Amino acid sequence: MKNCIVAQSGGPTSVINASVIGVFEENLKQNLYENVYCGLNGIEGILDNSIINLSEMNNEEIKNFKYTPSSGLGSCRYKLESFNDCRKDYLKLFEIFSKLDIDTFFYIGGNDSMDTVNKLSKYARKINSKIKFIGIPKTIDNDLCMTDHTPGFGSAAKLIATTVLETYLDSSVYLNNGIFILETMGRNAGWLGASAILAQLNGKPVADFIYLPEKHFKVDQFLKEVKEKYEEQNKVYIVVSEGIKNVKGEFIVESEAMPHDEFGHKQLGGVGDLLKEIIIDSGITSRVKALELGVIQRCAMHCASLTDVEEAYKAGVYALKLANDNKTGVMVAFKRTSNNPYKCIMEPVDVKSIANRVKYFPKEWINKEGNHINKEALEYFIPLIEGNPKLEYEHGLPVYNKLI
Amino acid sequence: MKNCIVAQSGGPTSVINASVIGVFEENLKQNLYENVYCGLNGIEGILDNSIINLSEMNNEEIKNFKYTPSSGLGSCRYKLESFNDCRKDYLKLFEIFSKLDIDTFFYIGGNDSMDTVNKLSKYARKINSKIKFIGIPKTIDNDLCMTDHTPGFGSAAKLIATTVLETYLDSSVYLNNGIFILETMGRNAGWLGASAILAQLNGKPVADFIYLPEKHFKVDQFLKEVKEKYEEQNKVYIVVSEGIKNVKGEFIVESEAMPHDEFGHKQLGGVGDLLKEIIIDSGITSRVKALELGVIQRCAMHCASLTDVEEAYKAGVYALKLANDNKTGVMVAFKRTSNNPYKCIMEPVDVKSIANRVKYFPKEWINKEGNHINKEALEYFIPLIEGNPKLEYEHGLPVYNKLI
Repeated sequence: MKNCIVAQSGGPTSVINASVIGVFEENLKQNLYENVYCGLNGIEGILDNSIINLSEMNNEEIKNFKYTPSSGLGSCRYKLESFNDCRKDYLKLFEIFSKLDIDTFFYIGGNDSMDTVNKLSKYARKINSKIKFIGIPKTIDNDLCMTDHTPGFGSAAKLIATTVLETYLDSSVYLNNGIFILETMGRNAGWLGASAILAQLNGKPVADFIYLPEKHFKVDQFLKEVKEKYEEQNKVYIVVSEGIKNVKGEFIVESEAMPHDEFGHKQLGGVGDLLKEIIIDSGITSRVKALELGVIQRCAMHCASLTDVEEAYKAGVYALKLANDNKTGVMVAFKRTSNNPYKCIMEPVDVKSIANRVKYFPKEWINKEGNHINKEALEYFIPLIEGNPKLEYEHGLPVYNKLI
Repeated sequence: MKNCIVAQSGGPTSVINASVIGVFEENLKQNLYENVYCGLNGIEGILDNSIINLSEMNNEEIKNFKYTPSSGLGSCRYKLESFNDCRKDYLKLFEIFSKLDIDTFFYIGGNDSMDTVNKLSKYARKINSKIKFIGIPKTIDNDLCMTDHTPGFGSAAKLIATTVLETYLDSSVYLNNGIFILETMGRNAGWLGASAILAQLNGKPVADFIYLPEKHFKVDQFLKEVKEKYEEQNKVYIVVSEGIKNVKGEFIVESEAMPHDEFGHKQLGGVGDLLKEIIIDSGITSRVKALELGVIQRCAMHCASLTDVEEAYKAGVYALKLANDNKTGVMVAFKRTSNNPYKCIMEPVDVKSIANRVKYFPKEWINKEGNHINKEALEYFIPLIEGNPKLEYEHGLPVYNKLI
């Protein structure tokens, strides 16, 4: 009997390990592979023979790994060159795969990782290797094409919406409140920032403005909007994606809008800090707070979505089925068949149509002014954040398992 | 029958509303007051006659308020002058209290608020008023004297420890990891930063260094420690309190250590950003991330400690008992009688011994090098973060009630 190998690549998510356990547990049922190997630190580690055998670990050693956030197998940002340019990595990888008697390579990652799956599956065909290459989607950015959504996104959206609710309450307590700015991740696509629409009180979004990379950001218009809102209600809550761009398509944080001191030096910081500076400089108010959520968005398993954890797991299960069906060069994709009740099926899609591409937040879900999200988006978002996984707790904290 | 009035003051916490509900529900049982009034925005709002009647609200209107983070009655930072200097506020407050037939004023807050309770109770004695003034403790900083701990701290500590665990996992995934710095609140006392000791994997704290305001921070020693640790393990996890000070007792962020550009301008940002700059400038590595937790620490009810919520509630209940016992000028304090099992009793303490004072993190719980916490502190911390409150969820998010 042959073996398989699983590895993780790109930025971590809260639920990426659930996909590893999905592959592993389904194989225990189906007995497709004798050993489930794990490559540590993606293909970068595999090239360095950094490989463990999950099938040799006992239950205690694997316990709670499904509910442990961040890439438990380690990760990499390793761009495989085209095999026309450089075959060294390909030769080495296939040599290692051959030595381990690998039948299938499961790669859990985003659009860069799907590029790797694409290149390796093509190379296998070229050299008549029977090794199969299957992609399992993962990214908090939700920007993979050909799939309704990606595992990792739901939990990030839930953490963002929860934090928007809670920090909105926190920023509304004084008679003289100020302006609060929450900066989310999302350098190219606005899915994460847009998920702030989920945070509602009495049926209304708590965020006054939500700015995404998909719409040009105009500083003058922004200041006008914020000033009016501040005069109207004595507080303003703003959500902004890190990747907002000006009309020239430049990132705002890299553009001329970035405040300079009198000697022409740009200030440090993210877009939240930048907007804070711009508001203070404009004289609207000096009471401005900016909070950059940062990596919390991609590792807060204590606030994960049960739907997301279970779908990440099922993506692993389904990947095994695809291998059994003799597929290669495909990624597990989600196709939503119903919103109410929420239903998704899985299907294979060709990694070529995913690799290196970006799925943007739909423009029709952004309001005319480009400063908020339409409520039609709620139907899409809500099912993805439903349910709370039952984590094991000890001494008041979740029990996580750092496998290696 | 007479009435009482409850108000909140100072910075919000996740559990401050539980104390309001504690007062309210205990009064429903004991029927001590006809009406439980709430002053909005602390004494600042009361002075402006901004008062609601909780006893006139129905169950639906109050539902989930116990589990809603942040000061639901609004807050203020209003320093009452000494009545020798200016009696205007005193006259106005007592006039309003008299009009509402107030028997007891419950003030939920920290050391500034206890100063207010102290002044008002003294004034009442002076003018032979029978109105009682009772303090209910609240602060995430845990820096009130005469009490084992303060409601609000446990939930903040739990959020910090959970986030340290999760961001540690997030910052450990690559072959070439960098240095991660988490900045906690705590301008004067180090309790919040110290709670990072709770974050452990395999029985060991994940934070390599924890720096508190209670120990002088020396940049040279810091760089030496970080460099050695980075060379040893290729990653370093640092927790730092916002209020660390140099040997002169100056806040580091306001001191000369703050990097200047070549024209002598200080960079913006908190102490995390500052340490990041210092590390990069020193040449140890350029892979440094700093995360400022900010207000998340004081409003993350989704990650609150059940012990904390229940104690905040009980502090409200006990305050009513103190009023019934005809006490005034006292604050509800917690006295720990046992760690295992955890047991606390409540007792009244004179607000004079709390007002405007700070309880520092014990030096004997800081290690000799001043860069970590001794494990003796764990016994103190653990009981305070135990248990998860059962929040009501709808569409994947906690249901909060913004009362006003």
